[in-house]
Amino acid sequence: MNERVREILSWYGSDNPGTKTNLARMLNHGRLGGTGKMVILPVDQGFEHGPARSFAPNSPAYDPDYHFQLAIDAGCNAYAAPLGFIEGAAAEFAGRIPTILKVNSANSLSTNKDQAVTASVDDALRLGCSAIGFTIYPGSEDQYEMMEEIRELSLEAKSVGLAVVMWSYPRGGKLDKAGETALDVCAYAAHMAALLGAHIIKVKPPTDVLWQPEAKAAYEKANVDKSTLAARIKHVMQATFNGRRIVVFSGGEAKDLEGLFTEIRGLRDGGANGSIIGRNTFQRPRADALDMLDKIIAIYQGKM
Amino acid sequence: MNERVREILSWYGSDNPGTKTNLARMLNHGRLGGTGKMVILPVDQGFEHGPARSFAPNSPAYDPDYHFQLAIDAGCNAYAAPLGFIEGAAAEFAGRIPTILKVNSANSLSTNKDQAVTASVDDALRLGCSAIGFTIYPGSEDQYEMMEEIRELSLEAKSVGLAVVMWSYPRGGKLDKAGETALDVCAYAAHMAALLGAHIIKVKPPTDVLWQPEAKAAYEKANVDKSTLAARIKHVMQATFNGRRIVVFSGGEAKDLEGLFTEIRGLRDGGANGSIIGRNTFQRPRADALDMLDKIIAIYQGKM
Amino acid sequence: MNERVREILSWYGSDNPGTKTNLARMLNHGRLGGTGKMVILPVDQGFEHGPARSFAPNSPAYDPDYHFQLAIDAGCNAYAAPLGFIEGAAAEFAGRIPTILKVNSANSLSTNKDQAVTASVDDALRLGCSAIGFTIYPGSEDQYEMMEEIRELSLEAKSVGLAVVMWSYPRGGKLDKAGETALDVCAYAAHMAALLGAHIIKVKPPTDVLWQPEAKAAYEKANVDKSTLAARIKHVMQATFNGRRIVVFSGGEAKDLEGLFTEIRGLRDGGANGSIIGRNTFQRPRADALDMLDKIIAIYQGKM
Amino acid sequence: MNERVREILSWYGSDNPGTKTNLARMLNHGRLGGTGKMVILPVDQGFEHGPARSFAPNSPAYDPDYHFQLAIDAGCNAYAAPLGFIEGAAAEFAGRIPTILKVNSANSLSTNKDQAVTASVDDALRLGCSAIGFTIYPGSEDQYEMMEEIRELSLEAKSVGLAVVMWSYPRGGKLDKAGETALDVCAYAAHMAALLGAHIIKVKPPTDVLWQPEAKAAYEKANVDKSTLAARIKHVMQATFNGRRIVVFSGGEAKDLEGLFTEIRGLRDGGANGSIIGRNTFQRPRADALDMLDKIIAIYQGKM
Amino acid sequence: MNERVREILSWYGSDNPGTKTNLARMLNHGRLGGTGKMVILPVDQGFEHGPARSFAPNSPAYDPDYHFQLAIDAGCNAYAAPLGFIEGAAAEFAGRIPTILKVNSANSLSTNKDQAVTASVDDALRLGCSAIGFTIYPGSEDQYEMMEEIRELSLEAKSVGLAVVMWSYPRGGKLDKAGETALDVCAYAAHMAALLGAHIIKVKPPTDVLWQPEAKAAYEKANVDKSTLAARIKHVMQATFNGRRIVVFSGGEAKDLEGLFTEIRGLRDGGANGSIIGRNTFQRPRADALDMLDKIIAIYQGKM
Repeated sequence: MNERVREILSWYGSDNPGTKTNLARMLNHGRLGGTGKMVILPVDQGFEHGPARSFAPNSPAYDPDYHFQLAIDAGCNAYAAPLGFIEGAAAEFAGRIPTILKVNSANSLSTNKDQAVTASVDDALRLGCSAIGFTIYPGSEDQYEMMEEIRELSLEAKSVGLAVVMWSYPRGGKLDKAGETALDVCAYAAHMAALLGAHIIKVKPPTDVLWQPEAKAAYEKANVDKSTLAARIKHVMQATFNGRRIVVFSGGEAKDLEGLFTEIRGLRDGGANGSIIGRNTFQRPRADALDMLDKIIAIYQGKM
Repeated sequence: MNERVREILSWYGSDNPGTKTNLARMLNHGRLGGTGKMVILPVDQGFEHGPARSFAPNSPAYDPDYHFQLAIDAGCNAYAAPLGFIEGAAAEFAGRIPTILKVNSANSLSTNKDQAVTASVDDALRLGCSAIGFTIYPGSEDQYEMMEEIRELSLEAKSVGLAVVMWSYPRGGKLDKAGETALDVCAYAAHMAALLGAHIIKVKPPTDVLWQPEAKAAYEKANVDKSTLAARIKHVMQATFNGRRIVVFSGGEAKDLEGLFTEIRGLRDGGANGSIIGRNTFQRPRADALDMLDKIIAIYQGKM
Repeated sequence: MNERVREILSWYGSDNPGTKTNLARMLNHGRLGGTGKMVILPVDQGFEHGPARSFAPNSPAYDPDYHFQLAIDAGCNAYAAPLGFIEGAAAEFAGRIPTILKVNSANSLSTNKDQAVTASVDDALRLGCSAIGFTIYPGSEDQYEMMEEIRELSLEAKSVGLAVVMWSYPRGGKLDKAGETALDVCAYAAHMAALLGAHIIKVKPPTDVLWQPEAKAAYEKANVDKSTLAARIKHVMQATFNGRRIVVFSGGEAKDLEGLFTEIRGLRDGGANGSIIGRNTFQRPRADALDMLDKIIAIYQGKM
Repeated sequence: MNERVREILSWYGSDNPGTKTNLARMLNHGRLGGTGKMVILPVDQGFEHGPARSFAPNSPAYDPDYHFQLAIDAGCNAYAAPLGFIEGAAAEFAGRIPTILKVNSANSLSTNKDQAVTASVDDALRLGCSAIGFTIYPGSEDQYEMMEEIRELSLEAKSVGLAVVMWSYPRGGKLDKAGETALDVCAYAAHMAALLGAHIIKVKPPTDVLWQPEAKAAYEKANVDKSTLAARIKHVMQATFNGRRIVVFSGGEAKDLEGLFTEIRGLRDGGANGSIIGRNTFQRPRADALDMLDKIIAIYQGKM
Repeated sequence: MNERVREILSWYGSDNPGTKTNLARMLNHGRLGGTGKMVILPVDQGFEHGPARSFAPNSPAYDPDYHFQLAIDAGCNAYAAPLGFIEGAAAEFAGRIPTILKVNSANSLSTNKDQAVTASVDDALRLGCSAIGFTIYPGSEDQYEMMEEIRELSLEAKSVGLAVVMWSYPRGGKLDKAGETALDVCAYAAHMAALLGAHIIKVKPPTDVLWQPEAKAAYEKANVDKSTLAARIKHVMQATFNGRRIVVFSGGEAKDLEGLFTEIRGLRDGGANGSIIGRNTFQRPRADALDMLDKIIAIYQGKM
């Protein structure tokens, strides 16, 4: 094992060798293997937005095999999906790429700010997954119930040697649209995921808004740099145990490729551990997606 | 085992041999055995609508034996019913037709969009069933609780070698009447059932309505064909793992026989795995019902 | 064992020998033993209405021993009561009459349409009971929770060889007073109890009202006879698996003895399995009560 | 063991020898030991009303040792308190007086009519207690949840040989102040505790109000004597299995000593099993309290 | 072990040797080891208020190692933090300072007066902690649920030899701002924590307000001295089993150092067991914090 992965694993001194092994599997897999950087392919949009909104733009993506193959061919570190998508192809692709079982899910027919727990740690084990993935909505009316669910799932996952990935998306309650991606709120969401015991944290790239008045005062007093995306990412990394937790960022809203690459450079320069990119990937023709991921990986490799 | 059944079982690579055996039992039973097509007799209307509304039109149907015998004589693949109806005849008909224990139920005296969990996986085992059946109401205020119930029941059922059948009926919440059977909503409902880990999915034949504005845009951009029932069914099959999950369709509203046969042809031409037909069956005199099922089976056999 | 009991037990082919034994105990006990008819003494009114309203008219009835002795002396098939009343005398009367432990209870100080679960299957076992008794309120806002409670208790009871008796009393929700005893609603309530897996079902004698509009249409189209109590009882028996579940009827509102006997004749002529009569029994002086039960039993024996 | 205790134990024929032993321990302890009468010291007012309102009038009472010693020196049958007060002195006073662990508690900062479950049967066992104590609020919106909690705790307690004491205090829901202590409501509350399986029941001395209209009619028709406290107590004893459950009464509102002794005489003459007196005891100087308890015991001994 | 620690342990006679050992570990650790006094460093403000509001004033504090090292270097008795902060450094600092795992947490994005349970007793064991920490909000709408959570966690913790620390912060419900820190309410909150079985109780230093009218009357009648902080602390200690529970006080609102030291002297003179000081510590530069803690410890040592 190379030095960087060994260093990252050293941050997780409280975990058992099983969990460390699964973290190492993800860190060592794919074209970024061994760099401490990760690109993860997540495909839960079918559940969240519906199948046609997700896959009609590129219809081979209706097939669960498609995503496994794409993640493998692109050299991603891991592939994340809900129960059925993993079940649908896990046997065929067994051992070819680490998988993250997304164990809760929302859908766009719902009105409340919550998710249903739709899979179990036992499912993750029987399907050969390396980790469970769980979304929390800090700020929502149901946030404490969600946190109590992940408390139990997380304890169980760690005890059987799985890693825990948390999607931390502020929404609901007092939060307005600007608040959901504000720098202070994003850093807070990442910090809470870390305190809840996540090994890998996924948040959205933050804007330069400061939303909570008391936080705004603290940021201004301490002169926290928020002028560039890289600066803001640096702050988020600091907020997650001074950079000692793996944090990956979602691709955010659809944008043109140059916009996307610019953003990835900002993530990289801020010290992010990587990207987790769904729609931007599988909604393009396969060749274009592979080309895009190739460039993203190159950015994280410092070649672009 | 013939080739088609073998192919279908290959889609369920994550399941244990017990569950595969039960899926094979249903796929190989009856006059459509081995074709990959299924006609299932479901009798839960006594619970859902009341006994007289269900059985007064054909009073021998008050008897639990009646339906077992009808399903056997018609050559159906399986028979589905709530606890009491299975308990009432399972010993007498043991081993003569695969059964699906419907483990949740609603009734027409209720006002909320939910169901009560009325049977257990242990009941299914002690009664010799091949599968559990569970209804979800995507969109309803209680949908996440229902999904969490099926998560637990499903994990338990799979671990003991049973198959899982999901009735996915959008209703409640933001949905209006047109939305409940809209193409986008129906495909979404089928997709979610697949993601929740269903082996067999039951939905209603969709209309050509597109209900969610964001979905409408996606369908129109991708030029998804919705001009005929066959085209719409084809889309629903695509939305369930690119045709790699068994999907059967309900008979929809009462109609004349010609209307019904036309609809079944549409289902068949769209690639549906079959039909699940209750009221249209047991509310006719037994001879008429057998004649009707004979023709439906002939349609799926390509003879009509 | 005589032929009729053997026949009734044959309806319960899904049950284990333990449960069949307990059903046989109740069917074979008392003066109606072996006839397939039953008279059961239930004493839960102390919980439901309060002690003085229940027992002040005949004060020896405050004593738990009183009811055991009365049920034995009258030759009843079984005695049903809540936890404390069974605990208070079960050791003294051990083995002298089958008992049914009522495991949920309401009280008249409450405003909501629910019951508290007040005893357990383990209580029934340690107290030597033959069955558990449970009330559901079809139509009430809490009906699904009640059904989920009986699902669990029933599965547990059956697994340890106990029988399950359900009191099915429509109330709450959309139902008005006329609806609670309407023929369609009563038959529906009895049918649901059967589908929920009850071995013995208790409902109230139905009126000739048809309450749900869709049901009314079905009854009228099928020309279901509702002109006499016997005709209506016949329909309720039909609605419970074509007469293949044991159904007993409550005594209804207090009335004079002739009115009561006339009603019992109607129940008998409609094919009811018997009566479950509480207040009418224990609120009379003991000698009168014994005399009344003697006549009721004579009616079921066809002697009156 | 003397005859009276043997007789009382005979009422509890459904209980195992462990529970009988603990009932005997309480009945045989202290100066009333063997008489079938009991004086119990309960100290849960710190939780219910706050420490200063409870103990400032007699500040040594802040100490958990104080109450153990007081109960022992006064010759009480048992001492009842919440978890912390028992934990704080149980080791030091081990084996010197039977203890009742109060396992639920309310506080005066709350607005709802419920209690929190604050201790467990396992706590009672590890602390050497003879019984658990539990409060129900018949009539309150949460009464059914409370009853379901005691159902579980009670079953567990009995299975490990502990006795069950219920405080049955009507309040909330439809009840007004007069209803809470009305004769019919008090007798109903005591009856329900008995039906829920309590071995020892604590209620308040009832007034001569009849509160539920249907109950009023029944009382008047049966000419139930309510003219004196003794007559009313006699009725409450009758309502608890015709006097075959142990019923003790709280001291009611603070009053002068003569008023208290008069009340105790009424309890005694009505056949009560004893008193459970908290505030009136520990809010006096120790010498006065001992003197008061001496007189109360003398009343129950028939010497005053 | 010195005499004072032996005496304190004697208050916990109901606990097993495992729990006593962990209490002793905390009492004997650090510069106040053996004195019966404690200074504890708690770092849960990241969860409660957000990372930047907590750590931006002194950015090395973003790192979980920082706090362990600070607590060790300052000679604190123990360090308390939520799951992630303990996980992040527990292996590196194993055995160097006793830790308290904070098992529930709130955040400032929420609107309700509750906390999420965010860690388990199993987490505390696997991380080598000496105690669990739990916050209750007496008075809040959710207080009974919180108390029922700590009931279960506490029983489990004690059974495996851990100590239980309770943060008892009145808020919500009827309470206004003045009520939250009123003397009567603070003493009540401390008393309830003791009755709930806490070994160590944390409350805020009380003001001289008396908030509940009935309590006010009792305080005035008993002439409870509330003129100085020391007098009020003395009363709080009295309210916690006459001084036989360990009570530590939070630092209260930010104030200048002289104000803080004056307050600490008041705590000491009132008989408090110590202080638990978070923000005042880690928001200063490390050298200043060490200097401040040095003086606080000196105050408790009686040197200042």
